[in-house]
Amino acid sequence: MTGLFGALALDRSLTSLLARWRDLSSAAGFLAQAPSTPDLAPGDLDMLAGAMRESLEARGGEVSARARAAALGQVYLKLSTLGRCRFLGLLARDFGADPRALSDAARRYLEAASTEQRAEAERALREAAEAPRVRLLTRFTSLPAGVKFLVDMRTDLLAMQGDDPVLRALDWDLRHLLATWFDVGFLELRRITWDSPASLLERLVTYEAVHEVRSWSDLKNRLDADRRVYAFFHPRMPGEPLIFVQVAFTRGIADNVQTLLDETAPVLDPRAADTAIFYSITNTQEGLRGISFGNFLIKRVVDDLGAEFPGIEVFSTLSPVPGFLRWLRRLDQGAVAQAAGLVEEDAEALAPLLAVPDWQQDPQLAEALREPLLRLCARYIAGPGAETGKEVQASAFDPVARFHLGNGARVERLNWLGDTSPKGMRQSAAIMVNYRYESGEIERNHERFAATHAVALSPAVEKLLRPVRRRRPAGLARLLQQRQPDPQPDPTAHESV
Amino acid sequence: MTGLFGALALDRSLTSLLARWRDLSSAAGFLAQAPSTPDLAPGDLDMLAGAMRESLEARGGEVSARARAAALGQVYLKLSTLGRCRFLGLLARDFGADPRALSDAARRYLEAASTEQRAEAERALREAAEAPRVRLLTRFTSLPAGVKFLVDMRTDLLAMQGDDPVLRALDWDLRHLLATWFDVGFLELRRITWDSPASLLERLVTYEAVHEVRSWSDLKNRLDADRRVYAFFHPRMPGEPLIFVQVAFTRGIADNVQTLLDETAPVLDPRAADTAIFYSITNTQEGLRGISFGNFLIKRVVDDLGAEFPGIEVFSTLSPVPGFLRWLRRLDQGAVAQAAGLVEEDAEALAPLLAVPDWQQDPQLAEALREPLLRLCARYIAGPGAETGKEVQASAFDPVARFHLGNGARVERLNWLGDTSPKGMRQSAAIMVNYRYESGEIERNHERFAATHAVALSPAVEKLLRPVRRRRPAGLARLLQQRQPDPQPDPTAHESV
Amino acid sequence: MTGLFGALALDRSLTSLLARWRDLSSAAGFLAQAPSTPDLAPGDLDMLAGAMRESLEARGGEVSARARAAALGQVYLKLSTLGRCRFLGLLARDFGADPRALSDAARRYLEAASTEQRAEAERALREAAEAPRVRLLTRFTSLPAGVKFLVDMRTDLLAMQGDDPVLRALDWDLRHLLATWFDVGFLELRRITWDSPASLLERLVTYEAVHEVRSWSDLKNRLDADRRVYAFFHPRMPGEPLIFVQVAFTRGIADNVQTLLDETAPVLDPRAADTAIFYSITNTQEGLRGISFGNFLIKRVVDDLGAEFPGIEVFSTLSPVPGFLRWLRRLDQGAVAQAAGLVEEDAEALAPLLAVPDWQQDPQLAEALREPLLRLCARYIAGPGAETGKEVQASAFDPVARFHLGNGARVERLNWLGDTSPKGMRQSAAIMVNYRYESGEIERNHERFAATHAVALSPAVEKLLRPVRRRRPAGLARLLQQRQPDPQPDPTAHESV
Amino acid sequence: MTGLFGALALDRSLTSLLARWRDLSSAAGFLAQAPSTPDLAPGDLDMLAGAMRESLEARGGEVSARARAAALGQVYLKLSTLGRCRFLGLLARDFGADPRALSDAARRYLEAASTEQRAEAERALREAAEAPRVRLLTRFTSLPAGVKFLVDMRTDLLAMQGDDPVLRALDWDLRHLLATWFDVGFLELRRITWDSPASLLERLVTYEAVHEVRSWSDLKNRLDADRRVYAFFHPRMPGEPLIFVQVAFTRGIADNVQTLLDETAPVLDPRAADTAIFYSITNTQEGLRGISFGNFLIKRVVDDLGAEFPGIEVFSTLSPVPGFLRWLRRLDQGAVAQAAGLVEEDAEALAPLLAVPDWQQDPQLAEALREPLLRLCARYIAGPGAETGKEVQASAFDPVARFHLGNGARVERLNWLGDTSPKGMRQSAAIMVNYRYESGEIERNHERFAATHAVALSPAVEKLLRPVRRRRPAGLARLLQQRQPDPQPDPTAHESV
Repeated sequence: MTGLFGALALDRSLTSLLARWRDLSSAAGFLAQAPSTPDLAPGDLDMLAGAMRESLEARGGEVSARARAAALGQVYLKLSTLGRCRFLGLLARDFGADPRALSDAARRYLEAASTEQRAEAERALREAAEAPRVRLLTRFTSLPAGVKFLVDMRTDLLAMQGDDPVLRALDWDLRHLLATWFDVGFLELRRITWDSPASLLERLVTYEAVHEVRSWSDLKNRLDADRRVYAFFHPRMPGEPLIFVQVAFTRGIADNVQTLLDETAPVLDPRAADTAIFYSITNTQEGLRGISFGNFLIKRVVDDLGAEFPGIEVFSTLSPVPGFLRWLRRLDQGAVAQAAGLVEEDAEALAPLLAVPDWQQDPQLAEALREPLLRLCARYIAGPGAETGKEVQASAFDPVARFHLGNGARVERLNWLGDTSPKGMRQSAAIMVNYRYESGEIERNHERFAATHAVALSPAVEKLLRPVRRRRPAGLARLLQQRQPDPQPDPTAHESV
Repeated sequence: MTGLFGALALDRSLTSLLARWRDLSSAAGFLAQAPSTPDLAPGDLDMLAGAMRESLEARGGEVSARARAAALGQVYLKLSTLGRCRFLGLLARDFGADPRALSDAARRYLEAASTEQRAEAERALREAAEAPRVRLLTRFTSLPAGVKFLVDMRTDLLAMQGDDPVLRALDWDLRHLLATWFDVGFLELRRITWDSPASLLERLVTYEAVHEVRSWSDLKNRLDADRRVYAFFHPRMPGEPLIFVQVAFTRGIADNVQTLLDETAPVLDPRAADTAIFYSITNTQEGLRGISFGNFLIKRVVDDLGAEFPGIEVFSTLSPVPGFLRWLRRLDQGAVAQAAGLVEEDAEALAPLLAVPDWQQDPQLAEALREPLLRLCARYIAGPGAETGKEVQASAFDPVARFHLGNGARVERLNWLGDTSPKGMRQSAAIMVNYRYESGEIERNHERFAATHAVALSPAVEKLLRPVRRRRPAGLARLLQQRQPDPQPDPTAHESV
Repeated sequence: MTGLFGALALDRSLTSLLARWRDLSSAAGFLAQAPSTPDLAPGDLDMLAGAMRESLEARGGEVSARARAAALGQVYLKLSTLGRCRFLGLLARDFGADPRALSDAARRYLEAASTEQRAEAERALREAAEAPRVRLLTRFTSLPAGVKFLVDMRTDLLAMQGDDPVLRALDWDLRHLLATWFDVGFLELRRITWDSPASLLERLVTYEAVHEVRSWSDLKNRLDADRRVYAFFHPRMPGEPLIFVQVAFTRGIADNVQTLLDETAPVLDPRAADTAIFYSITNTQEGLRGISFGNFLIKRVVDDLGAEFPGIEVFSTLSPVPGFLRWLRRLDQGAVAQAAGLVEEDAEALAPLLAVPDWQQDPQLAEALREPLLRLCARYIAGPGAETGKEVQASAFDPVARFHLGNGARVERLNWLGDTSPKGMRQSAAIMVNYRYESGEIERNHERFAATHAVALSPAVEKLLRPVRRRRPAGLARLLQQRQPDPQPDPTAHESV
Repeated sequence: MTGLFGALALDRSLTSLLARWRDLSSAAGFLAQAPSTPDLAPGDLDMLAGAMRESLEARGGEVSARARAAALGQVYLKLSTLGRCRFLGLLARDFGADPRALSDAARRYLEAASTEQRAEAERALREAAEAPRVRLLTRFTSLPAGVKFLVDMRTDLLAMQGDDPVLRALDWDLRHLLATWFDVGFLELRRITWDSPASLLERLVTYEAVHEVRSWSDLKNRLDADRRVYAFFHPRMPGEPLIFVQVAFTRGIADNVQTLLDETAPVLDPRAADTAIFYSITNTQEGLRGISFGNFLIKRVVDDLGAEFPGIEVFSTLSPVPGFLRWLRRLDQGAVAQAAGLVEEDAEALAPLLAVPDWQQDPQLAEALREPLLRLCARYIAGPGAETGKEVQASAFDPVARFHLGNGARVERLNWLGDTSPKGMRQSAAIMVNYRYESGEIERNHERFAATHAVALSPAVEKLLRPVRRRRPAGLARLLQQRQPDPQPDPTAHESV
C-alpha cells in the first residue's frame, strides 16, 4: 500500500514536484515498478477519495492542492485498466454537484417570478450545478504535460464508459472542459517541414491514418517543395499536433494517390501549380473526440495558400470512401442493378468479381467494372436523399463525405483506380473522391447541407446519378466465368470486402 | 446606421477579417470616427440581437460565425458607455439559458430516483443551464487580441453592473470563462529585464501601482543586477503582463523603500545576498478581478530564486499598510490610548501631530511618535481577533495583510519611516511591514488563517501587542504645543490622513 | 604586482575563465579596484611580453592559450591610458613578423624565376609576413564580448597612434582582421521597433549622431507606424548595432527635419506614402573606422521597403551639410559674391548677418538670405570640379555628400530652414540636402563619381549653379544696418559658424 | 555561350539576385541543365577573367560587385571537373599579388634601416602581398550559402591541386581566409537531440564516419536520455554541423562499442552515471581540412557535462585504432615475436589466424590471440619512441592516437573485442582504445607530447609494454593447424588485414 500511495506524502515545493512528475513520465522503468494494488482495492478507494477531497479543499493552500493533484495523477498512471475504471468511477460518483444544494437551486429557479429573480436563480443554479471534480481536473494543468494527461484520461474514459450514465456524465464534464481550452482561437497553425523536429515528424508517421507512411523517405517526399503539411497545436501541448493536413501542388485535380505518393516523381515548382490537393487529414487525439478542428484547418490553409500562391485557383481534396463497399454489400441485388445500370445477371457477378485477387491489374476486368462501380459510388456519396428527395440523417452519409459536405465543399469527381493500395481496394474498390472547396459557394453549400442534407454535385457526378434508360448486358457475368474465380473463395477475403 | 453596422456585411475570408480587426485595434484614429448612434438606439438593438443570433446559429459555418463575432466586437468598440451598457444588457437579458428547457431539466432532476437517473439528470441540467452567450463570447478568441478584448469587456461590465442581478449573472459567466482560460497552469512565468521589449517595460511603468515609476532610469534601477522582476503571461495575451512582482536582493531584511528605490545606491552582488525582498506586487488587469495569481507567483519566484541562489535564506516582503491611518481615524480616543500605551492627553495629540507638515523630518517628533504608532499599527495588522480572541471577518483586515497572511506568511517586523513618500505618509504614517515566507510554516499559517483568521506573528511584533502596564506621559501633548501647528490646519491635509 | 598579474595564474577550465571574464566586464566595482601599476612599469612589460609569448606558443594547448589571452585582456582593461599605450606598443614592436624569416622570403621572392617558383615564393612571403600578434588578437574571439573587446582596443589605438609608424602597422593588422570578420556578408539586417529590447534602444539613444534623441518619447516617435529603423548586427556582438538608419514614410520629399521629429505630428499610414526619407545614418563603432557598411545598409533597406510597400516610388535622404559654413568662412569675398550672385556690399554683410542670434526667426532676414545661401551651398555640394571642370580630390567634398554621391545618389534638392536646431544653424545655416537614390541611375552615377568626381544634380540644383547675369543689390547690407548687430559680437558665436 | 554566361548580365537589385541564387541552389533541375561549354573553352576563360576583374574593381559599386561574384558562382556550379580546374587555375595564376608592387615592397623592406622604417616597410609588404583573389572570394559571403560555397570550392581544390605550386598558393589563401572566419571563437556549440530538425539529423547520418548509422532507430538510440551529441556550428552555415561528438553515459569505462550501439540495451539514468564515453568524433567538412575544432569541442563538452552532472568523474573515449593492422603487416617477424612476447613459430601463425573468417566467434582462438595482439597494439599506440627512447615524428603515430595524445589525454586501456564490426575487424583486429582526459594532467601530457612525443600511459598499458622475460609457446601454431585455414586463403581477405 505504501508503494502505491507514497506519492501522496507531499513536498511543499512545486519545483521538486515538477521534477518528480517529469521523472515519472520520462523514466521508462516507472511503469514496470508494480504498484501494490494496481486494480485499486476497496481500502485504496477510500484513501483516494480522501486525497481527492483534500485537494479540492485546497488544504495547505492552492499550490499544495495542485501538488496533491499531481500525486493523484501518478497513482492513476500506475493503475491497471480495472483500477483506472474504479478511479474514474469514484470521480464520477462522489464528486458531482452537491445534491442538496442543487435541488434547492433547482427549486428556487422554478419558483422565481421576476426577470431579476430568474437571472439570479439561473446564476445560482449554474453555480450549484458545477461538479467539484471539474476543479480537481483543472488542477492538472499546472503540471508538465498535465493537459495531455487529461486528454489521455478522456481516451481511457471513452473506451470504458459504454452506456453507463454516471461515467457519461463525467465524460460530459471532461469534454466540456477540454472544449473550452481547445477552442480553435487558442490553437496555433504551424507548417511542418523537413526542418521540423524529428520527434514531431515521428509523431506524424505514427498518427497518419489515411495513407500509411512507409518510411522516412516516404515522409520526406511528403514534405518536398511541391507539398505542404500544416497542423494545429495547443500552447500547452507543444510538439503534439492535434490535427494535420497534407497538401500537394499539382497541375489539374489529382485523380489518384499512387502518383502523389510516388517518391520518384519529379518535383513541381509550386509557382507553376494551379491546384492544391488536400490528400490526407488526420485527427490525432482520440481524447478530443467531438471537438472539431478540421473545418478551421482547411479554411485557414486555403486562405494562407491563396495568399502565398496567387496562381492556385482550385482547392480540392483527394479523399477515400471508407464506407463504400460495406454499404454495397448490404444493398439488395435489385437496387444494385438499378443504381449500377446493369442487368441482373451482371449485377450478381459484381461481388464475386471484386473478390478476384488483384482484379485492378486485369485491364479488361477493370474497364468492365469501371462504370457500374462509379455509378454505385456516386449513389453512395450523394446519400439516400438524392434518390428519394426525402430528408435524411447525417449518419446515413459516408463519414468523409459528411465532413467535407458539412464544410461546404461539393462532390467534384469520382476517380477510378484512385487508390489501389490493399486498404483502398478493401474499402472502396480503389475509388477516390475529389471534394472541391470553391470560395463562392462554400457558405451556400454548407447552409443547404446543414438544413436538408442536400448535396452539392458537379455536373459530371450528377450525370453518374442519372438513371440508365435501357440496361444492356455489360459482360460481367461472362468475365466472371472466364476468370473462374476460385470456386471456394477465401471467405475472409470476401468478408473483408 | 450603415456606418455602424457596415461591419456586419461580411467577407468570407477570415484572413481579410483578421487584417481589418488588426487595423481596428491599432489605428489610433478609429475611436475618433463617430459611429452614427454610439448610444445604440432601440432599432440598433434589434439589429444587434439578430446579428448575435446569427453568430450563435453558426449560419454559414463556424468560420463565418466567428467573422460575425468579430464584427460585433467592432461595433462594441465604437460604442459610448451608454451604448456598451445596452449591448451588455442585451447579452445578459436575451442570451441566457432557455427558460423552458432549464425548467424542464430542473424538474426532471428533482424527480430523479436512482443514482443513474440523478447522474443523467444532473448532466442534462448542467447542459440546459449553459448560457448561449458564453458560446458567443468564446468566438472572440480566434481574433487577434480577442482574449484581451474580453478581459477589457469585463472591465467595462464591472464598472457598470452595480447591484443589477441581470448584469451580475453575465459577469458570473464571463468571470467563469476567463477563470477557465486563465488557470495558473496555462500561464508562463517570465523574468523581465532591461533586455525585455521597451513596449513591455512601458507597460510596467503604466501599471505599477505600489511605488510609482518616476522615469526610465528609475525603471532601469529596478532591473539591475541585484533585482529581479517576474511576471505571469497568458499565451494569447503576449506582451501583456498579468501580474508582476519586484524583488531586491539584500543583506538583512530591508526596512525602508527609500533605499531600495535610490538609483545611486551601490549594486549588490546577488551571490552575496542572504535575503530576497518582494517590494511590489501589481495586478494589471481589472477585467481579471477575482481570479488570483499572486499566491502562485510568489511561490514560483521563491522556488526559482532558492534554486538559483542557495545563499538566500530569507524571503520577505516590504509592504505598504494602505488602510492604517483610515482605521486609526475611526478609532475612539480611549481605544487609541489603550493600544498605543499612551495617556489620554498624549493620545489626543496624535492626530494633530500627524497633520504637522513633514513631521518625519523633525527627529524629536518622529522619535516621540515612533513607539505609539508602531503599537497601533501592530494592533491594526494583527486584526480585531488578536485582542478579542473571537473569530472575525477577512474583510476586517488590511487588504495587503489579508493577501500575505492568507498565503501563509507571518508578520515579521514593522518598520518606522519605511516609506516617507507622500503616499506612504498619507496612508500609514510612513510605516511599512515585512511579511515573511518561511517554507517550514507556510502551510500551517495558511491553514490557521483560513480556518480562524489567527495571525502568525514574530516575537518582536507580539511584543508590540503586549499591553503596557502603567502608561506614563510620552510628551506628545507638549510637543504639539511647541510645534504650534498651524492654528487653522489645512483641512484637506488633515482629511487626507 | 600580484594584484595586476594575478590573472595570469590560470585555471585550466575555460568555463571558469569565462565566468571570471563575465564578472570582470559586468561587475561595476572592477575598474575602481586600483591595479598596482596601471601605467605598466618596465618590469611589468617584461612579464607581459612573457605571457604573450606563452599564449602564442600555445603552451598547455590551444584552450589554455586562449585562457592566457583572456588574462591579458583583463590586464589591459585595468590599465591607464599610458599603460595601454605601452601594452599596444609592446605588441606592435615585439610581435611583428620575424625579420630574418621575412628578409629571406623577400630575397627568395626577388630571385624567383619561373611562374611556379614565383607562386611558391609569393605564398611563402605571405606566410612569413604574417604578424604573430594577429594570432594573439584572434584568440580573444572565444571570450564573451571578445570581439567587442578588440573593436574597443582599436578605438584606443586610433586615438593614440598619431604618426607613429610602428603603431600604425599594428592598426593595419587590426583593421585587416576586423574587416575580414565584419565583412558585410556576415552581418544581419534587423529592424528595430518599440518591441526591441530596451537595452538596445538605449544604445540608439547614446549613439545617434545626426539628430540627438531628446527623450524616450522622442525615440518612440521615431519607431512609430510611419517610421522604420534598421541596423546591421554582427553575430558575435549581439545587441550592439554597428550602423543604423532612420527612415520616415512621407507624401512628397520631406524638406525639413523639424516636422519629422515633431512628436505631436499625426501618424501617416505607410501604405499611403509615396516616399521613404532616410533622415539619419549613424556609424556606432569608432573601432571599425574605415570598414564601410552604409552603402549596403541603404541598398538593402531600399530593396526591403520597395518589396513591402509597392506604393513607395521615391527613396531620398534628408541630410545635414556639416561642412558648409566652415567652407564658407574660408572663401574669399570675391568668390562669395560671385557664387551667391550678390554685389560686394551684400556679400560682406553675409557673415555678420549669420551671427545675428536667431536670424531664422526674422522672416524678412531669412527671406533675404535664402537665395544667396542656397546658391552658395549648391556650389559647396557640387564640389570644386563643377566650376573648374577639373578633376578633384574626394576630400574636397562635404563628407555626407561624398558618401551619398559615392553610393550613386544624386543631389535632388536643397532645403531652406531644413534644420533650425542649434547644430543645424551652426553647421549649415539650417540648410539640408535631399540625396535621391533612383534605381535606374545609381550605377551610372556611382561610376562617374568614382572616375571623375562628376556630381549628378537635379535640374533644380543645376539652376542654382547657373551664374547670375547681372547682380543687383539684395538689400543685405541694409538689413545688417537695421538689425544693428551687436557691435562687439560674441567671438565664440562667430567662431562657431 | 549565352547560356553559360547569361548570368553575368546583372540585375541591380541584390534582392532579386538572392532569389535567383536561392533558386539555383534549391532547384534540383539546375545541374542537369547542360551549360554550353562546361569544360570552359579558351574564349570562356577570357570572358571569365574579365568578369572577375570587373567584380574586383567594384564597377558599379560594391553591391553590384557582389552580384557579379554571385554570377561567377553560378557559372562555377555549372562547370565540369575540368572546367572547375581551369576556373581555379585562372584565379590562382592571374589574381595573385601584383609582381611589380610586391617586388618593390620586398626591396624596400630589405633596405629599411630604422625600426620605424622597418615597421612601415613590413606593413607595406603585407599590403602588397595580399592577393586580389582573396577580395573576390570574400564577396561570396553576402550570398545565401556563400560560405558553404567557398568551403565546397576548397574541397574541389584539395582534390585537384596535387603538387601544383600555383594551385597550392591559392589553397593557402583560401585556407587562411576560412581559418579566420572559422576561428573557434565564432562557432556555436549546440546539443543535438531527437527534437532537432530532421534535416539536421539526416546530415548526421550522412556524415558519421566512425560507426555507421544504420537506420533512424539507430540514430534515435544515439540521442537517448543516456546519450549526448554535440556539434559546432558557424553562424553563416546554420543547419550544417562542422564537427560532432557522440557521448554515452555509463557506469565504468565502456570496453566495447557493440553494447553502446545496441538499440535494445536499457537506458541508464544519466545521474547514476560515473563516466562519459566519447565514442565518435566526426569532422564533416573536407573543405575545412587543416582547421582544427576537435580539441575545443572535447574540452567544451567535458566542461559542460561536468557542470551538469557532478557525478561524472571519468571522461574517456572509446576509439578505433584505424592503422593497427596496416602497421602490423609491415612489421618483420622478429619484431612481431619480440613485441607480442611469442616464440617465432606462434608469431608466424598470427597473420594466417587473423585471416580465419569470423575468428572472433571462436572462443578458444580469440582467447589465444588476445594477449599477443593487445601487446602488439600497445606497442603501436605508444609509438616508436616508447621502445627506442628517441624522439619521433608525429606522423609515426596512429592518427586517432595522435589527436587525443596531442590534446593531453592518456592511453587508459586497450579493449579486446571492442569493435567486432567488419570495419573493426579489418582495421584493428577488433581492438579499441580508451583515451582518458583527466583534468589534472591534460596540460602536462599535452606539453610532453608536443615537445618530445612522449606518450602518457596508464599502469595497465605500461604493463603490456614490458618485455616478456622468457617466451613460451602460446599454442597459436597448433591452433592454426587445427583450424586448417583454407589452404588457398582468399587473397583479398588476407590483403584486407
